[in-house]
Amino acid sequence: MSEEINSEKYSIKFLPGDRQIKVNAGETIIKAARLAGVHINASCGGSGVCGKCKVQLESGNVDGGKSEKLSDEDFNEGYRQACISTVISEAVIRIPVESSLKAGGLATEVPIRHRARMHVFNVDELKEEGVFAPPVEKLVLDLPEASAEDNMADAGRLIHGLNDQYNEHRLITTLPVLRKLRRTLREQKFQVTTTLSRSVSEGGKTHIVNVQAGNWEKRNFGLAVDIGTTTVYGSLLDLYTGEVLAKGGDYNGQISYGEDVISRIIYAEKPKGLELMHDLVINTINTIINRLLKTANIDRDELSSITLAGNTAMTHFLLALEPHNIRRAPYVPVSTFFPPFRATDLGIKLDTHAVALVYPSISSYVGGDIVAGVMGSGMYRTETVTLYVDIGTNAEIVIGNNEWLVCAACSAGPAFEGGGITHGMRAASGAIEDFSMNPTDFEPMNITIGNKPPIGICGSGLLILVATLLENNVIDRDGKFNRLLDTPRIREGRSGYEYVLVWEGESGVDHDIVINEVDIENFIRAKAAIYAGIKTLVESVGLEITNIEQIILAGAFGSYIDLDSAMTVGLFPEVDPDRILYVGNGSMLGTWMSELSNHIRKDVVDVVKRMTSFELSEVNTFKDQYVASLFLPHTDISLFPNLKKRFSLFQNISEHNI
Amino acid sequence: MSEEINSEKYSIKFLPGDRQIKVNAGETIIKAARLAGVHINASCGGSGVCGKCKVQLESGNVDGGKSEKLSDEDFNEGYRQACISTVISEAVIRIPVESSLKAGGLATEVPIRHRARMHVFNVDELKEEGVFAPPVEKLVLDLPEASAEDNMADAGRLIHGLNDQYNEHRLITTLPVLRKLRRTLREQKFQVTTTLSRSVSEGGKTHIVNVQAGNWEKRNFGLAVDIGTTTVYGSLLDLYTGEVLAKGGDYNGQISYGEDVISRIIYAEKPKGLELMHDLVINTINTIINRLLKTANIDRDELSSITLAGNTAMTHFLLALEPHNIRRAPYVPVSTFFPPFRATDLGIKLDTHAVALVYPSISSYVGGDIVAGVMGSGMYRTETVTLYVDIGTNAEIVIGNNEWLVCAACSAGPAFEGGGITHGMRAASGAIEDFSMNPTDFEPMNITIGNKPPIGICGSGLLILVATLLENNVIDRDGKFNRLLDTPRIREGRSGYEYVLVWEGESGVDHDIVINEVDIENFIRAKAAIYAGIKTLVESVGLEITNIEQIILAGAFGSYIDLDSAMTVGLFPEVDPDRILYVGNGSMLGTWMSELSNHIRKDVVDVVKRMTSFELSEVNTFKDQYVASLFLPHTDISLFPNLKKRFSLFQNISEHNI
Repeated sequence: MSEEINSEKYSIKFLPGDRQIKVNAGETIIKAARLAGVHINASCGGSGVCGKCKVQLESGNVDGGKSEKLSDEDFNEGYRQACISTVISEAVIRIPVESSLKAGGLATEVPIRHRARMHVFNVDELKEEGVFAPPVEKLVLDLPEASAEDNMADAGRLIHGLNDQYNEHRLITTLPVLRKLRRTLREQKFQVTTTLSRSVSEGGKTHIVNVQAGNWEKRNFGLAVDIGTTTVYGSLLDLYTGEVLAKGGDYNGQISYGEDVISRIIYAEKPKGLELMHDLVINTINTIINRLLKTANIDRDELSSITLAGNTAMTHFLLALEPHNIRRAPYVPVSTFFPPFRATDLGIKLDTHAVALVYPSISSYVGGDIVAGVMGSGMYRTETVTLYVDIGTNAEIVIGNNEWLVCAACSAGPAFEGGGITHGMRAASGAIEDFSMNPTDFEPMNITIGNKPPIGICGSGLLILVATLLENNVIDRDGKFNRLLDTPRIREGRSGYEYVLVWEGESGVDHDIVINEVDIENFIRAKAAIYAGIKTLVESVGLEITNIEQIILAGAFGSYIDLDSAMTVGLFPEVDPDRILYVGNGSMLGTWMSELSNHIRKDVVDVVKRMTSFELSEVNTFKDQYVASLFLPHTDISLFPNLKKRFSLFQNISEHNI
Repeated sequence: MSEEINSEKYSIKFLPGDRQIKVNAGETIIKAARLAGVHINASCGGSGVCGKCKVQLESGNVDGGKSEKLSDEDFNEGYRQACISTVISEAVIRIPVESSLKAGGLATEVPIRHRARMHVFNVDELKEEGVFAPPVEKLVLDLPEASAEDNMADAGRLIHGLNDQYNEHRLITTLPVLRKLRRTLREQKFQVTTTLSRSVSEGGKTHIVNVQAGNWEKRNFGLAVDIGTTTVYGSLLDLYTGEVLAKGGDYNGQISYGEDVISRIIYAEKPKGLELMHDLVINTINTIINRLLKTANIDRDELSSITLAGNTAMTHFLLALEPHNIRRAPYVPVSTFFPPFRATDLGIKLDTHAVALVYPSISSYVGGDIVAGVMGSGMYRTETVTLYVDIGTNAEIVIGNNEWLVCAACSAGPAFEGGGITHGMRAASGAIEDFSMNPTDFEPMNITIGNKPPIGICGSGLLILVATLLENNVIDRDGKFNRLLDTPRIREGRSGYEYVLVWEGESGVDHDIVINEVDIENFIRAKAAIYAGIKTLVESVGLEITNIEQIILAGAFGSYIDLDSAMTVGLFPEVDPDRILYVGNGSMLGTWMSELSNHIRKDVVDVVKRMTSFELSEVNTFKDQYVASLFLPHTDISLFPNLKKRFSLFQNISEHNI
């Protein structure tokens, strides 16, 4: 989740076409144009090298905008290089003909792209709903001192106090509390703060896990931890106010033993391997806790609770459970549901009183992180039929509402992480993350992460690239290039036809950056696996894919997904972009919720029971769905009615062709 | 509890009077006479020194019977020293006149004494009642192997198996089980033995605390431990059959830090003192466990359960709870009720899966040992109004039935342990433990522990001695000696009048052994405290002491109490001796029950709630009851109607005098 910088916004108008956009001061003109749906030829990713993105200021001003590629004369006439000009005031900017060759003014206009709306967590919503009730709570008691008439045992006095003053029942003490109870009660004249840990099971006992002399009601803190395969994130929460006091992450210490879960499972099967995997992730968690405590200036023993979520393999490593059968058919985890633990029993360095809750999983490939996402997103509480999707190497999918939930993991392959694509790469500096194409000359506008010379294409770039190629008839619905187009950018390469995004001289590498038909085929397979998974799941409950009313995106990739592209290529079913929400780290969100609301913690138990899991490879219809999805967007175009309105390509396709 | 030797019994008849008794081969003639209610003058405690106990064989034979005190001539005429003759056949034995001077034949007859009937624990009774259901149970599962159609997680498979095959619900796993579950399930083709630990609370969860590959159903063992201030006893139980496999005890390792609880509490208040007291008792328990395991030839990890009971101070030391306020008004323990623990959390060396249950207490001075006794004796389940009493320095008293229970501790003082009595001693070798008196010449028959020359008087001897002095009008109901009796054994000593039990030359010490009026006063105070406690308690529920229908004696002393004497002196209310039961170590009995029956374990919770505790010093009427009890048997003789029938002394006392 990126924090938006609270800077001033300025309106930038582009001519011809009068497209206008409000952007933050400091934004580049090329990105402003991209947001406005205005195309400017630009190959070099915004590093000022290619010099193609020349624009002319009509009014207002910008900062910078001149490299050696722009003459002083042009600069004085108001020309700027869009990619190295930054917004400092309102401005009107003209796209000159030379920046959109052969296009004429209007041809600079390209479709406006939509990202998912960001869901912002707000504890006040929990409070308004009346579910703000942290499962670990501090209650202050002023107890009568013991006397001859009332010589109840100390523990009995404490429990009766909680009965009488707070209507708390079904209480049980713990050994550490009993061991310090006598002196603690008498330190501040029988005023004590009790820390209660509530049960999630109906009729379960509430444990009195700590006692402190005096009033510490407001010093009650908890931790929410998302254990990702790559990165572990932690949040320190104020359980009295519900506020997030500190957040931080670190690479999962296991990463040097393999980037993916399978190689770590293989390592864990070696002698002492599991202990090592366990220790590494615990060390990472302990390091993050230390940092959060320092940031928030809180003592370790003020932390009473920790909720953790991760995928099934990470959960096994966390608990030192043997993960062997996760990777072997029939893919059996040791457990999907976990009793409450003492944090110290897991090796987490907290006070002995701290309780640890580990999110339940559904199966070997739908883990606690997804369950946490379902909880955090609230999809299990709404009537709206919702698709929850978290895309990585696997795409985990949950579909349902307050009545039913189905889920599965789709082996999408690594295309969305840049894997299996000739010039694919992870989302890092120099990766082409955004793209548009001049509809007349097929020249690209490449936008890279960090405005660096392009070195490859990351997942979000790939998605928008394929969609744009399709929308511009550069490729057909089978992913094959139109061999008739008049542009040097389309050529026959070593792996069949390809499109050149960046010429070598304008790139950050010593070769052209291209996308070829094999890459597109791999991309289509990835998106087909996900779409077929969605369709199979939704049909398993007797509904159609068109019944999906809302999409919730989770995971790092989710925030970069261009929604229009996703629907153009048939990655997602068509849904009004306003009904697509990005929740960021869904797993983190769910662990927050569980730290802040015992209602939600209790709901988890029901939700897990309701979540019907499918092993897609075992579902007969999945294979057919998959094959039918190996088209852009799909063999059955009637599933994407809006596409026909948007793009000429689709206008003449019969609804039931093929 | 003494084990009776399975030897042959012979009938011995005493003349004159024809009193006959069956005794074991090897028993001394003097003890046979005592059991038959036949008095033989005998000072030296059965060591053959005084030579006074000469008897004559009329028929049959005995072994031994001759020291230097008996002439060869007498021996040949059939005379024997009764105290060193042992039974080897049926015999008829005449008490000669010289052995009961001035008495004539009939005067050798003294009242027959009654000991309480021994309650023998029998697991079959639990089975017949349908309550044999150990809270820790092993269940064998044959589970289907995981397959593509059924790829439930291992833990889920286990739980479903228990649901389906045993109708077990509300199950919860533990971390150690989860950690070994994968390999354990697959070791014997999904045949596993689960160890379940049931909850005592309604709706509580059943914990799956262990899993083993294969069938181990019958290898399920538990421990019952009674933590006495002096001695710790342990029993190893077969939880599959209910049998006791091994028993053993050892001195409580704390004993070198003080014989009584108060001095140990004082020690525990020093820095590191509590840790030491905790470690010492835990070490004692661990030593006993090691021995029991060896005796029964059982592996440590086959023990899954331990139940412990002790008085409130011992329970505090066991759990390392601060005992400070137990000894200070208003006498507040840290806790009277305890959650279930892991045995290892207490420092007990068992496998991590073993669960520990600690018996709840009632108050600082009515501890878990007494609660265990109430459970073990079954008094809480009968309609019969029952008095349960465990006499030591404190006498703990419980009165009630299946509807109500009241309890208190009476500070009886150490008289019953020989304390505060001029020649009092603990029950050890050479202690006079039994006594009768020739009603005409007041000569004693002293019987000592181990047939050694007497060195003092222990509690049981003191009780029978005072009762006998009273029954023979040697002392009056105020405990004062009859100064008119013609015997050298009654004389004025340093502490007022006294009775000489043993002349110096016949004793094992270098002085006469006596009982004086101060001793008797101390004894009366002790018995008055107990009787007044009983009367106060029973009246607190609106009943009279005569409503008590049954007495249950517990504790080492209980088996030695002469019931007739106890009622003569007014220690106990009058109850038919057949309705008096000795349960031995009631605490041990209760811990057995709890190991063998979760029904009983659940009952404990209710029983503790029902047991109303009285601090007698805070009850207004107690003081009056105490003063009224400072008489033999009591100021109100109507409370002891049978006494009037038995002894002339009481026949002329008005029922409402004083």
